[in-house]
Amino acid sequence: MFPQEIIRKKRDGGRLDGAEMRWFFNAFLKGEVADYQASALLMAIFLRGMTREETAELTKIARDSGKTLNWPESAGFVVDKHSTGGVGDKTSMIVLPLCLLEGVRVPMIAGRGLGHTGGTLDKLETIPGMNVFLSAERATTQFNSIGGFFSGQTDEIAALDKRLYQLRDVTGTIESNPLIVASILSKKLAEGLSGLVMDVKFGSGAFMDTMEKADALAQELIAVGKLCGLKVRAVLSNMNSPLGTYAGNLLEIYECREVMAGRVSGQLTDLTLTLAEEMIDLAQPGQDRRELRLRLESHLSSGRCLEKFLEIVRAQGGSTEIFMRDDAFFTAKIKKPIFGHQTSGRVESIEVRALGLAVIALGGGRRVVTDKVNGRVGLSALKHVGEAVVAGEPLGIIHADDERSALEAEKLIQAAYRCGSSGTSQPIIAKILREK
Amino acid sequence: MFPQEIIRKKRDGGRLDGAEMRWFFNAFLKGEVADYQASALLMAIFLRGMTREETAELTKIARDSGKTLNWPESAGFVVDKHSTGGVGDKTSMIVLPLCLLEGVRVPMIAGRGLGHTGGTLDKLETIPGMNVFLSAERATTQFNSIGGFFSGQTDEIAALDKRLYQLRDVTGTIESNPLIVASILSKKLAEGLSGLVMDVKFGSGAFMDTMEKADALAQELIAVGKLCGLKVRAVLSNMNSPLGTYAGNLLEIYECREVMAGRVSGQLTDLTLTLAEEMIDLAQPGQDRRELRLRLESHLSSGRCLEKFLEIVRAQGGSTEIFMRDDAFFTAKIKKPIFGHQTSGRVESIEVRALGLAVIALGGGRRVVTDKVNGRVGLSALKHVGEAVVAGEPLGIIHADDERSALEAEKLIQAAYRCGSSGTSQPIIAKILREK
Repeated sequence: MFPQEIIRKKRDGGRLDGAEMRWFFNAFLKGEVADYQASALLMAIFLRGMTREETAELTKIARDSGKTLNWPESAGFVVDKHSTGGVGDKTSMIVLPLCLLEGVRVPMIAGRGLGHTGGTLDKLETIPGMNVFLSAERATTQFNSIGGFFSGQTDEIAALDKRLYQLRDVTGTIESNPLIVASILSKKLAEGLSGLVMDVKFGSGAFMDTMEKADALAQELIAVGKLCGLKVRAVLSNMNSPLGTYAGNLLEIYECREVMAGRVSGQLTDLTLTLAEEMIDLAQPGQDRRELRLRLESHLSSGRCLEKFLEIVRAQGGSTEIFMRDDAFFTAKIKKPIFGHQTSGRVESIEVRALGLAVIALGGGRRVVTDKVNGRVGLSALKHVGEAVVAGEPLGIIHADDERSALEAEKLIQAAYRCGSSGTSQPIIAKILREK
Repeated sequence: MFPQEIIRKKRDGGRLDGAEMRWFFNAFLKGEVADYQASALLMAIFLRGMTREETAELTKIARDSGKTLNWPESAGFVVDKHSTGGVGDKTSMIVLPLCLLEGVRVPMIAGRGLGHTGGTLDKLETIPGMNVFLSAERATTQFNSIGGFFSGQTDEIAALDKRLYQLRDVTGTIESNPLIVASILSKKLAEGLSGLVMDVKFGSGAFMDTMEKADALAQELIAVGKLCGLKVRAVLSNMNSPLGTYAGNLLEIYECREVMAGRVSGQLTDLTLTLAEEMIDLAQPGQDRRELRLRLESHLSSGRCLEKFLEIVRAQGGSTEIFMRDDAFFTAKIKKPIFGHQTSGRVESIEVRALGLAVIALGGGRRVVTDKVNGRVGLSALKHVGEAVVAGEPLGIIHADDERSALEAEKLIQAAYRCGSSGTSQPIIAKILREK
């Protein structure tokens, strides 16, 4: 086969068969097909699309391009949750202990933050001593004893996806549904999952700006997952406001503690419980959903969820000391309230992406993967769309380590909030999609 | 600027401005934009197209990316001819002496054969001693004394085009009109031309299979040429039969000699005279076309054209001895007539591309640029579409150096000719397009 013949076929809108795709991408991994040929094919895929069968084929090739994890039969239906990324998204840390409390095992492979979106690993790393890159052996041991873990993805998993993602990032070929679906599912399949709950976000802080686009991606994830033998459900959630009221690594761990201890309610808690409920229902179908929900709520209010989370932290070498005192979470030098331009009214809209960029400006996020992250900084008390902003009340509070970055973040946040008289609250969950 | 932003703009169907294109392609030449980014942009251009203004911009960037030739004012209107490639195309060697005889200067930059199409340089190199890569100094001296030369393109001309062509060749992005136009015109502009006559071929042996596609490319060449200050005319010529009756390097020099000596007439002579006429009319407008044609015909019949050609050969170090005896041109070891499957009838169609591939099979062409070429082998007495194939008469004659390749060529040629009862001859020139 010639790589340019395969590129031409897709360029002209043809469907690639399994043999062609396997040949091309495996030759690419071996260096026999060049980066410039792969990027030309990616652009052709971007503009011509792929069928679900082609996407499933690429998913399986990427899954098989690296190490795959395997869990014993006795582990039962193994499930994970994945989000398309947003600002203040901290549900992963809470759904894992909730699932374990219900006897559902979760080998959670999480990622780092990049651009305006945060990452679970960065958040967990603010816990002193916490090891977020487990070896396969250690991960397996913890999976067998506790039932789950948090870990970063090693280079050994889905090697093809890693190579393709690097190319897509610099060749303008990120925003392609088939490529996104293959990227997400290949990594999740390599984790040895039976089921996956996707949190597909839409809105000003999400990758997809509209619910329609999120819906299309979710349907694709479910259909391609089915072709690959993975049961996928998708929760479409609103990202026109930050999730919860904190953004920033250590600050979000604080907010998690509050949710896990049952001390706060609201959209973050709602979404977290819904995601956990779907995960558990996937693994243990047929149970009474109302009772399950009540049990999950009681895991929070009873403190059991926090207790289980701390057990995981300890298992991964983390110190639980900071969880004992509030002031351990608020360690940035400067706390600066942000005031809007209007004296009073309601929040009509938020450019949520800009809130993520404000966290980057403070040093708490990454512009490029090699950036160092300051876990202490961030934002708190963030107002949501539809909330009232009474005279003298701030839009949120900046936690900064220096004045310059605080000023930069302030400008970004002030520009991001549009206040007026007619803002209305939006529901956090727009839709839940399940395999038919 | 970020390369991925420029790629995205074109990917989404936007128009690139001059500054964006200059930045991208100059950064590519400097190695600051990677090959994989350039190939992604090329695929986006392939699928989204470029306006004539964008194509003109790319043409000028490529022209300025290497050395440019300059001719003195006194040289007058300098013109060249370029063909999109075919089988048996040998007009370049005849139009140059014809132009010189009319006082029109032609600094002809020619190419090598690749794939099924032959190349002027390979043909000229079968003349012992002939130097087809002139230094700029030597080319200038010959241009000033004789008025023209044949030379290969050095790496110094249109460096960007060379890099882009190499990428396009292996990424399935060759067949894009804007990219083809920019490639052709950038090199011709760098030659310091005032006018260009394009031989845009269509049919089974051409790059463009239909007249409509050739027409579209010709219009693009003329319009973009105008934007770049180059007067372009295009002759749309038929490539559903080989041009002339010989294909193969030395054999084609023989056929050129016969045409230049006024000993053969037919489609090859017609097309050659038309191309020369357009070149001369571009350079010296307003003359009586009927008289010009008669003069050109007399240059052939009088032997003046052959004489001028031999003057150029001598100036470039070539020996003219082979031109003195016919048998010097027929030196392949085996001469094998090819018979069709039917006993008699007419040629209904020819897959002309396969005739070019037969020449490659004989060793007389290149599959890849690094292949060595055997100048002696080829085909002769090739039948054209519409010609009668009387019982016992061959479709053509193979000139081979070994039996194995002769057999391979025979199979290709037999499969290429379709004979029946209804074949009709097609005119060689379909249309002539001039700038409005």
